[in-house]
Amino acid sequence: MEQSPARSSAVTVADVAREAGVSKATAARVLGGYGTVSAKVREAVKAAAAALDYRPNELARSMTTGRSGTIGVVVGDIENPFFSLAVRGITDVARLAGFNVILSNSGEDVAAEKAAIRTLVAKRVDGIIVSPAKEGDVEHLKDIERSGRPLALLDRSAPSLNVDTVIADDMQAAEGITGLLIGRGHRRIAYITACDTADHVFHSLDDIYTDSVRRRIEGHLGACREASLTDMEEWVRVGANSPEATRRIVMNMLQSAQRPSAIIASDSVIGLEVFKVARELGLTLPDDLSLVSFHDADWTSVTSPPVTVVQQPVYQLGEAAARLLVERLNGEVGEGRRIVLQTRLIERASVGAAPSSGS
Amino acid sequence: MEQSPARSSAVTVADVAREAGVSKATAARVLGGYGTVSAKVREAVKAAAAALDYRPNELARSMTTGRSGTIGVVVGDIENPFFSLAVRGITDVARLAGFNVILSNSGEDVAAEKAAIRTLVAKRVDGIIVSPAKEGDVEHLKDIERSGRPLALLDRSAPSLNVDTVIADDMQAAEGITGLLIGRGHRRIAYITACDTADHVFHSLDDIYTDSVRRRIEGHLGACREASLTDMEEWVRVGANSPEATRRIVMNMLQSAQRPSAIIASDSVIGLEVFKVARELGLTLPDDLSLVSFHDADWTSVTSPPVTVVQQPVYQLGEAAARLLVERLNGEVGEGRRIVLQTRLIERASVGAAPSSGS
Repeated sequence: MEQSPARSSAVTVADVAREAGVSKATAARVLGGYGTVSAKVREAVKAAAAALDYRPNELARSMTTGRSGTIGVVVGDIENPFFSLAVRGITDVARLAGFNVILSNSGEDVAAEKAAIRTLVAKRVDGIIVSPAKEGDVEHLKDIERSGRPLALLDRSAPSLNVDTVIADDMQAAEGITGLLIGRGHRRIAYITACDTADHVFHSLDDIYTDSVRRRIEGHLGACREASLTDMEEWVRVGANSPEATRRIVMNMLQSAQRPSAIIASDSVIGLEVFKVARELGLTLPDDLSLVSFHDADWTSVTSPPVTVVQQPVYQLGEAAARLLVERLNGEVGEGRRIVLQTRLIERASVGAAPSSGS
Repeated sequence: MEQSPARSSAVTVADVAREAGVSKATAARVLGGYGTVSAKVREAVKAAAAALDYRPNELARSMTTGRSGTIGVVVGDIENPFFSLAVRGITDVARLAGFNVILSNSGEDVAAEKAAIRTLVAKRVDGIIVSPAKEGDVEHLKDIERSGRPLALLDRSAPSLNVDTVIADDMQAAEGITGLLIGRGHRRIAYITACDTADHVFHSLDDIYTDSVRRRIEGHLGACREASLTDMEEWVRVGANSPEATRRIVMNMLQSAQRPSAIIASDSVIGLEVFKVARELGLTLPDDLSLVSFHDADWTSVTSPPVTVVQQPVYQLGEAAARLLVERLNGEVGEGRRIVLQTRLIERASVGAAPSSGS
C-alpha cells in the first residue's frame, strides 16, 4: 500500500496515460475530473493511477488556481453505511483530482447542518457536497452559492436550488418492490422510514421534508393505488431515526392485532432492526413476515434467510457528485445538472407469499 | 428532534442544571468538558442538555477565546463501523462543549493521513484527534503539537508521543478469546488482521506498525505460549485491509489441506468476510469452524449462528478522547494522560469444541 514519497511525486499524468494505454489528454481529463470519457476508459485510468500511486502536485495546483484544494462534505448520518460508502466514492474522485475531503455529519438535524456549513465556509473549502436534511430549509445552502463556491447535492434534490444534483431512481425502486409484494398476495404492507412529522404520524406526502424519502413513499403509494389498495397511508410509519426509535415502531406494529404481512425498510439500519425484532417475537421470515430493505448492506446476504434488497448505486452517487463538483471547480458553468442513477432489485429469500389470512 | 432556533439559543447552562437537578457549576463542568464529575452526573447533565436542545453560544465563546470552535478528527477507515461509532462519541462530547467536528479519512494510508493533518492545520482547527496509521511514522503529528494545538490519540498509542491517549485493553481481550478457544480444544487457531508487512507475511511483532493491532497479536501469541502451543506465528495472517483482500486470505486458508479449526477476526469487517467465505465453502459454524470477532457490530447478533465477539467500548473511546482534548482546550496542562478502557466478551454460538481431528 505504502509508497515512498519520492516515487509518488515522480509519477506524472504521462505515466498514468502510458499505463492505461490512453492519450495524455484523455488521462488528464479523467484525473482532472473534466470533459467526457467513457466509463471503461475512466476505470482504466483510475486503475492505472492507483497502481502507480499517482498523486497530483498539490503545491503547483494551488499556486496556479489560488485554491486550498479541499472539498467539504456534509452527510445525513455517517454511521449509516449508505453514507460512508458514498463518501468513499467522493473521496476517490476528489483525491485523483488533487482535492482533500473534510467531512461533517448533520445527524439529519438542520441546525447541525447549518453549523457544519458555516464551519466549512469559514474554513474556506473550495466547494461543498451536501445531502440536505430538509429540502425546504436550504437558505444556508444558497449562502454557499453566494460565497462563490460550487455546491452539489448528494442523493437528495432541493427544488429551490438550481445546482448539480445526483440522485437514485427511488420512486421507481419503491414502485418495483411494492409491486413485487402485491404480486405475492400482500395487502397489509407497512413502509418504515426515517424523517419525522410534527405529530410523528404520516398524513400525506407534504409532511415529508426529505426529497429521497418522499419519492420512495410516493412510488410505494402509487403502486398501491395502481392495485386498488386503499388507505395504505395508514401503514406508513415515520420517525425511524435511530435503532431505538425503529425498535419501538416495529415492536408496536408486529404486536398489534392487525399486523403487517410485509414490511419495506427505507434503509438498511431500519431493515436490520426489523429483522431483529421479528426474530425476537418468534416470527419466521418469510412465512410470517416478508421483508424488503433499501441498500444492499454487507450483512443482508449472511442472515437466515438472506434479505431481498434494493441495491442502490451508492458508491457511484458519491463519485458522480464529486465529478460534477470538480468540473465546476475546473470552470464548468451553466445550469445545474441532474443525474439519476438506476437501482436494482436483488431477490433473496425474505419475501414469500402472503399468509392465507393475509388479504 | 427539531427545535426553533429561538428556543435553542435561549437555553442556558442554568436551565440545563435545573433540568438535571445539579448545581450550575457542575453543569458547566460537564458542558465545558473540564473538571471531574461522576459518570452518573455526567449522563444526567448530557440527557438534560439533549432534552432541552442546549447549544452553547458559539459567537460569545469565540470572542472570549479567539478560537474557531472546530475539532479535527482523522480516522483509519470511516467505512469501518468501529470508527463511525467512535466518531459519534467524539461528536456528542464536542457538540456539548461547543465545538464542531470535521473529519478526515486516512484509509490507513500514512501519506493520506499526512495530507489530512496538513489540511486540518491549514484550516486552523483548534485541536486534533487521530488514530495513527503507523505508530513509528508520526513526525507530522509532532507538527500538530509544535503548532500549539492539542492532540489526542484514539484507539492507538504512539510511544514517541507524550499526548493524551485513549485505548482499549486489546492485549487482555485477545488473551481471553485465545484462552477460550484453547479451552475448547482448538490448536490450529488462525488470527487475521489488517495491517500489512513488506512481504505480506507475519514474522514477528516488530513487523506490526499499528499499536492496537500489535497489542492484540501479542495477547493472542502470549496465550498460545502459555498453553505450550508452538509456531503459532505461522497462523497469523496480515494484509486483510479490504473485504476483497480478506476474502483471498480466508479462501486460501480454508481450502488448504491443513485448515484452521478456529479463526479470530481482528475487526468486524474481517469477521463478516470469514463468515461469508465459510458459508460459501459449505463449512458449518461452529462444527467445522469456530469464529470470534473483535467489535460487536450490529450484524453479529442476527446471523445463524450469531457470532461470539469482543465488545469494545467504541463509543466511550471516542467520548474519552474528545473529553481529554476539550480539557486541553480549556487550559489543562501537563503530561499526556493514558486511559485504558475495558472490553467484554459476548459469548454467542459461533465457538464450539475443536473437531476430533483438530489437535
